[in-house]
Parts: sequence; structure tokens; C-alpha cells
Amino acid sequence: MKLATYKDGSRDGQLVVVSRDLSTAHYANGIATRLQQVLDDWNFLSPQLEDLYTTLNHGKARHAFAFEPRQCMAPLPRAYQWADGSAYLNHVELVRKARGADMPESYFGDPLMYQGGSDDFLGPCDDAVFANLDWGVDFEAEVAVITGDVAMGTPPNEALDGVRLIMLANDWSLRNLIPNELAKGFGFFQSKPATAFSPVAVTPDELGEAWQGGRMHLALQSTWNGRKVGLCDAGPEMTFHFGQLIAHIAKTRNVRAGSIVGSGTVSNKDWAKGYSCIAEKRAIEMIEQGEPKTAFMQYGDTIRIEVKGPDGLSLFGAIDQTVCEPDSQ
Amino acid sequence: MKLATYKDGSRDGQLVVVSRDLSTAHYANGIATRLQQVLDDWNFLSPQLEDLYTTLNHGKARHAFAFEPRQCMAPLPRAYQWADGSAYLNHVELVRKARGADMPESYFGDPLMYQGGSDDFLGPCDDAVFANLDWGVDFEAEVAVITGDVAMGTPPNEALDGVRLIMLANDWSLRNLIPNELAKGFGFFQSKPATAFSPVAVTPDELGEAWQGGRMHLALQSTWNGRKVGLCDAGPEMTFHFGQLIAHIAKTRNVRAGSIVGSGTVSNKDWAKGYSCIAEKRAIEMIEQGEPKTAFMQYGDTIRIEVKGPDGLSLFGAIDQTVCEPDSQ
Repeated sequence: MKLATYKDGSRDGQLVVVSRDLSTAHYANGIATRLQQVLDDWNFLSPQLEDLYTTLNHGKARHAFAFEPRQCMAPLPRAYQWADGSAYLNHVELVRKARGADMPESYFGDPLMYQGGSDDFLGPCDDAVFANLDWGVDFEAEVAVITGDVAMGTPPNEALDGVRLIMLANDWSLRNLIPNELAKGFGFFQSKPATAFSPVAVTPDELGEAWQGGRMHLALQSTWNGRKVGLCDAGPEMTFHFGQLIAHIAKTRNVRAGSIVGSGTVSNKDWAKGYSCIAEKRAIEMIEQGEPKTAFMQYGDTIRIEVKGPDGLSLFGAIDQTVCEPDSQ
Repeated sequence: MKLATYKDGSRDGQLVVVSRDLSTAHYANGIATRLQQVLDDWNFLSPQLEDLYTTLNHGKARHAFAFEPRQCMAPLPRAYQWADGSAYLNHVELVRKARGADMPESYFGDPLMYQGGSDDFLGPCDDAVFANLDWGVDFEAEVAVITGDVAMGTPPNEALDGVRLIMLANDWSLRNLIPNELAKGFGFFQSKPATAFSPVAVTPDELGEAWQGGRMHLALQSTWNGRKVGLCDAGPEMTFHFGQLIAHIAKTRNVRAGSIVGSGTVSNKDWAKGYSCIAEKRAIEMIEQGEPKTAFMQYGDTIRIEVKGPDGLSLFGAIDQTVCEPDSQ
């Protein structure tokens, strides 16, 4: 099943069911108006949405309309939790290597994770507004899941059952604000502005065999200003799977329905596969050439993030954003 | 106006208006069912609640009932943001001094702040459940505000106008998990389990002259196992006021209605005023006696956090929690 949230002027938007090929959509009227509502009462509401999804896929839904990703908010326009891991250790290793730092042994046993702001997400095609380019504007292409309730102390294999929906994220990062912020010791804050998510969130069965062991075994495409810069395999090199990431959150507290958990920047050891954030490209340049050559993003730059299924069709729709000045809106 | 959320078996509870003296309450039926709903549409809904509040205070509300803090969830049982500052620099200085570290100059110009989990708050009298006492269970008595919408880039003096409600927080901390977590560089995560809030949240006018310059000029009482351990003045020593804390969040992103912003542990230079968290008591012992003497909390320990107004009445009701084992529930 594929779900999206249409802009309607309200804070939470309007829930729509989207056809498998992303061509048509249908309001979930009479079942639920908001996605959080469905997550709060998943066992009762999701089968009804599945029925509508089947009808829609058969071309028999009465009030279907053409699906338009630009009308989408984030599937959850605001959420009660956004916890982002850094599960592709190659990314961490690369960035650290560029500044001459080793990988602490503890990084291999315990996921790195930060708590992000979740009160104001961006839709997949919303402009990304930054007041100052000196902040070092960068995209980060990630996989993310939305969970149901997961009780405190749940182990990783069971926590994985808490995955309700899968989507893509663009975890915008302000690279030049990071060093000072991390030096203060409390983690990211201003360096992590509003995150954007893909047009649709999908149930794990939509990925078929590509959803295995809590990982999405498909390539994540990143296209910067029309040039494909990343085609990174999101599967085998994800050191910690989503069940492990959720269990990490649940160690000392309950995780409640509608929590969003991110994978961190998708990254492969094979540099030929490209990159899912500019910081990584710059780290490679630093290692190979002694200094970074690629600049961070400029006003007017575009970033497109997408995943194609084995059938060549877009699974989640594309995140497709433009970097903008505050005045330009 | 004073607002609370009553337990009704649902995730968001039921909004009630509470009388000024905390003796009676009235469901906000016909106006709003949930506090988030009021924050989403403050200008339209809050005057209606104020009317009910006036009627209730005059003893003329038709279906008033005795107010029972034990029936309360947190005013916002789940929120879209919980951002906690560390605005009393005396606390930071003390904890650092105990481990022989100086105060970095940057701490005086820019607030320390971490993003907390906000999907599962505790009610004021809910048990605080921890699987392992070796984690170093500690309370943290704080002041917190709930905001309306504050646009990206809003300066501190204007951001202060975004304060809708004021309440108290017990920001439970697992002290022995903190060193490893901060060493990893991404900030707190497992070391900050579910936070509890006071029975009622109040509009700033309820504080009268005690609400000045974005600070609450009243004493915060902390009573541990029936013994008053802290009577700390929350006003003059708050280095960064709430407008500055909100503006810190809003520097690179919008702050949306229903965001909760915390002051950090209230702390005074005068040690005779006691402490608002055990870590501070231990830091003082470390400085004076070379080692900490006071142990962290045990199962069965209670902590009560409260503020009395100039008239001697409890302003927010009391946070009154017991530390419990998981099985004991």
C-alpha cells in the first residue's frame, strides 16, 4: 500500500491512497483524514486503506484523480519523533578519515543516532530555504521508516516488526555549523534544519524481496542539478538494520506510533557508486587530493532523490527540491 | 488561564480547564478536546477557554468537578518538539568544575540546547520506570514553555511573544549513560528517557510580575523522599531567557505551535539554596570533599517538584513521581 498527504492548507494535510504505479490517487475519506490517525489505530484502519488501494490499482476507484507529487506534504507533515541514525559506517569512516580521525571501536557495536526536530517537515517538492549559504548547505539522501508502538526494552528482531511504512528522506545539513555545534558537546541542532520526505510512504510488502533483514536492498539515486551523482546500494552496507535502530531508541523509553527513524546517509565503500551527500565527495577529494574541491549548494541548485524498483518504476516518487533564499518565496 | 489534560485511555487525553486555586476543573467540551488543537488555533480557541476559566473561578461552571492531579497526563501527552536548553550556566559550570574542566567562552554567548524525544511524555504523578539502576537515575527540575508558531529567523525579543503556556518539567536523566553518549559526539539519546510535566500549564499572565524578561522569578522546590533538597530561584540566574532559547531553535528553521522548550536544570550560585538535580549535589561534594557522597535514586524513591506563587498557592500543581522497576507496574 502507498500513502501520501495532500496539501489542503491545514497543518496535517489530507490523507490519500496512491496507486502502485503512482499514476492515480484517492482521498481516504470515510476511513481517515490524517496519516497519524492511521498509525494510532493501525490494525483497524490499515485493512480498510488496503481495500481502497486494491480498488484503486484495478482502476475501479470512483473518485480517483491523477497523482501530483508537487501537491504532497511530507507523508507525516509533523511527527512526534524524528530519530536519525548513522547506520552506514562507511560514511562515518570516510568523513573522519578526511580529518585524520580513526573510527572508535564503539561505533561498530552501538548505533550513532541523533534526535531531530519534527515539528515542521518539508514536502518532497518544497523549496529548501536557507538564510545564509556560508552555513554550507548539503543534502543527505536516506531511507526512513515510520513505526507503530514499540515498548521500552524491545530487542532488535522484535523492534523490526514495528516498521509500518518506508519512505525516503532528505536530511538537509548545514555543514559549516556542525563543527562548533558538536564541539559544544550536545549534538546537532541548528546544523539540522527541516527535513524533507518522499511523496509516498509504502508498506514493507511493496518492496517485495528488496526488503530483507530490516534493510532496503535497492539503489538510492541522487541527482544534483540534473547530474546523477549517486547510485548507492542501500542494502548490504547498512551496518545496523532498522530493527537495531528502533531498539536503540527503545532501550530506555517507549517508542510511540508515528515515530520516524532514519538510516543516515546511504554510503558504499565502492566510490564509483557516487555519493548521497556532498560532504562525502569532499572527504574523498580531501583524501585523494589534499583538499575539498566541490563546493556546497548554491541558491537555485536542485536535488532529486529517488529509488527505482526492480521493474524500473519509481517506488516512493522523487524528492525534488530547490535551494532558495528567504525573500524568493 | 490554567489548562490540564485528563487521562481517558486515549493517546492525547481530554482537555480540561482548571481553576486558579487548582481546586476544580471543567472539561473544555464544545471548545476543544485536545491541547494541541488549541495551540494550532490559539487566537480563536483560547478566548473561549478564558471565558470558561472565568466562570469556573467564580464557582459558576455547571459541570465543575474536583481537580485531581493524579488523573493528569502531561499537558501535552505527546508533542511535535521538545527542545531543552541549559540556560542556568551555574549548573554547567559546577558539573564541569567537578571534573576539572573550564567553561568555554562560547557558552556565554550561545545557549546549549539538545533535542529531546517527545512522543511519550509522563504525567505528573506517573511512575518513572527504569530497567537498571546502574544507569544512574536522576531528576532534573526545570521550567518549560509551550510555544505558538515562531518563524525562522525571529529575533529573541519577538520570539518571546511566542510563549503560550508555562509549566514545570522533570527531565529524567540517566547520568551514567551520559559520558559514553557525549563521547560519541551526537549528544544525549538513551541518557534522556521520557520527561514528565506538571499537572497544569498556565498562561504567562497567571505569573503576574513574576514573569519578567522571559524568566520566571519564583523559587522551584524539589523534595526528594520527603526532604526539601532545593529551593532554587528560577529568575535572575537564568543566563538565557526563553525568547533567546526559542530564537536559538528558530535560527535555521520554523518553530511550530506546540513546541516545548525547557530551561535546563534550575541552579543558583548560592549553594545554600540546594539543588534541582542530584548531579549538582555530587559535583559540590566532589569539589568540597574530593568525591561524590550522595547516591543516585533507588527504586521506591520519590521526587516532588513544585512552585508556590506569592500567595503561597501551588501555581502548576506538583510533579510527584516514584522510581519503579519495570515489573512493578
